[in-house]
Amino acid sequence: MPDVVLMSPSFDESPAGDSEQAAARERIGIATYRDGVWQDAEDTLAVERALEIHVAGAEPLITMRTPGHDRELAAGLLHGEGVVRSADDIVYLRHSADEPDVIRVMLKPEARERLDRIERNTLATSACGVCGKPSFRAPRSGRSARAIDHDWRVDPAWLLALPGRMRAAQAVFESTGGLHAAALFEAGGDLVALREDVGRHNALDKLIGRALLDGALPLSRHVLMLSGRASFELMQKATAAGIPVVCAISAPSSFAVDLGRQFSTTLVGFLRDGRFNCYSGAARLRA
Amino acid sequence: MPDVVLMSPSFDESPAGDSEQAAARERIGIATYRDGVWQDAEDTLAVERALEIHVAGAEPLITMRTPGHDRELAAGLLHGEGVVRSADDIVYLRHSADEPDVIRVMLKPEARERLDRIERNTLATSACGVCGKPSFRAPRSGRSARAIDHDWRVDPAWLLALPGRMRAAQAVFESTGGLHAAALFEAGGDLVALREDVGRHNALDKLIGRALLDGALPLSRHVLMLSGRASFELMQKATAAGIPVVCAISAPSSFAVDLGRQFSTTLVGFLRDGRFNCYSGAARLRA
Repeated sequence: MPDVVLMSPSFDESPAGDSEQAAARERIGIATYRDGVWQDAEDTLAVERALEIHVAGAEPLITMRTPGHDRELAAGLLHGEGVVRSADDIVYLRHSADEPDVIRVMLKPEARERLDRIERNTLATSACGVCGKPSFRAPRSGRSARAIDHDWRVDPAWLLALPGRMRAAQAVFESTGGLHAAALFEAGGDLVALREDVGRHNALDKLIGRALLDGALPLSRHVLMLSGRASFELMQKATAAGIPVVCAISAPSSFAVDLGRQFSTTLVGFLRDGRFNCYSGAARLRA
Repeated sequence: MPDVVLMSPSFDESPAGDSEQAAARERIGIATYRDGVWQDAEDTLAVERALEIHVAGAEPLITMRTPGHDRELAAGLLHGEGVVRSADDIVYLRHSADEPDVIRVMLKPEARERLDRIERNTLATSACGVCGKPSFRAPRSGRSARAIDHDWRVDPAWLLALPGRMRAAQAVFESTGGLHAAALFEAGGDLVALREDVGRHNALDKLIGRALLDGALPLSRHVLMLSGRASFELMQKATAAGIPVVCAISAPSSFAVDLGRQFSTTLVGFLRDGRFNCYSGAARLRA
């Protein structure tokens, strides 16, 4: 048995160095809209990318994350799952600059057995969309099958009214402040449906599920409004439902923007106070 | 093969009725703190509870959610995973008042086979903590092993300074607006470490992972500060690390409060503008 080697070759020791800070952000060109005027601009996005945690002798674990402190993330995730209880459970935990999105871990036998027990139980109960399913990569063929409508055009001026209309409909939100919301609008700004949940992916699942049960998919002439941030996962679900325009009150992640550009989805962020940023698919708003 | 039955006995047809709105909220007694004064009060929480989706012939899928529109959630989740592509893939989708947290689904064979393929692949890549792992229920024995320190006392007045100290340390946040943060403070309010990520569970995993790698667990004399809401999952991770005081800028979910009360963790929400609500473990602040 080798000694415990915690200080392996690594570039994510705490505190974060400059290179790590840089890896957590990405500057991109965007278009901004305010008072009927478009301008080119730059914006800084939080990077979202898959991390593979290779535990020796086990199938890799995969999680989406912002790069940086990746050894800590692996250790904390294995702790949160009840696999690793202290640093003594870890033989080594390696991260090298050659493989920035891979952590290699060797656990002591007792911790390794705890991981085996979880893996045996996992099959029975997995349900979420982001966390380590095959789906985390690009949308699978089954998901990307819906063609995003390239001809539909939307007036940017009426997007500005959507946050207010969503908030007005958020009865539950008003009383708890604790719920995420997803709302679907038709062209012109009429609210079709709004769903809320403690989990933002649930709110969107409920909205798309309603459309599916109504036989209304794909939602090719609709705008989706999100109460918070636009993550990769939410963009993926919207894309699978054929939604051509996704708006968020707050920031998108870099991977959400990548997906928007790949599928020509219009992705709008920071839609509030009479303005917004457009991260992909601006042509749909500018025609 | 039975006909498609979408309008099964259900109490979550859209739009939500009064009973459903009620199920999404829960009123509880709390203590509020402002200007050195404690007061008893009531607060309304967003409910967070597990939903079991029983697809005939498959292992159940489990997801945490706010009750309401549960048939839609099941349909949307199966759509997001690429299993269900239209309502035609569903033989029935049932929700009865006798089992408010169970959805029973029968899929047509082609969709059923897509689910099988995902189940076979899931084993290889699961990693997250909230989404349908056995861990979603109460903390397992391995997790709850850390004793929360019952004797430690914290001055409520210095909690008020923590949001400002966290924000001051959020260098990345300032430039993107897109990151969740988790910060660890010592008694008296000194910042020990801060981590950020597009995923809030990642930010906390990084923080706890750092402590684990340093041999500093359990964190029995520390306060955790969260930039957003306090979910069940975050409380579970904090409890597993032995953290006695968890503070959030925004609201906790009902399940987070349940967990706080079960383990006598001090759970503080809406910590901002010189005040906060205390949802569990107020004795640690009032001595």
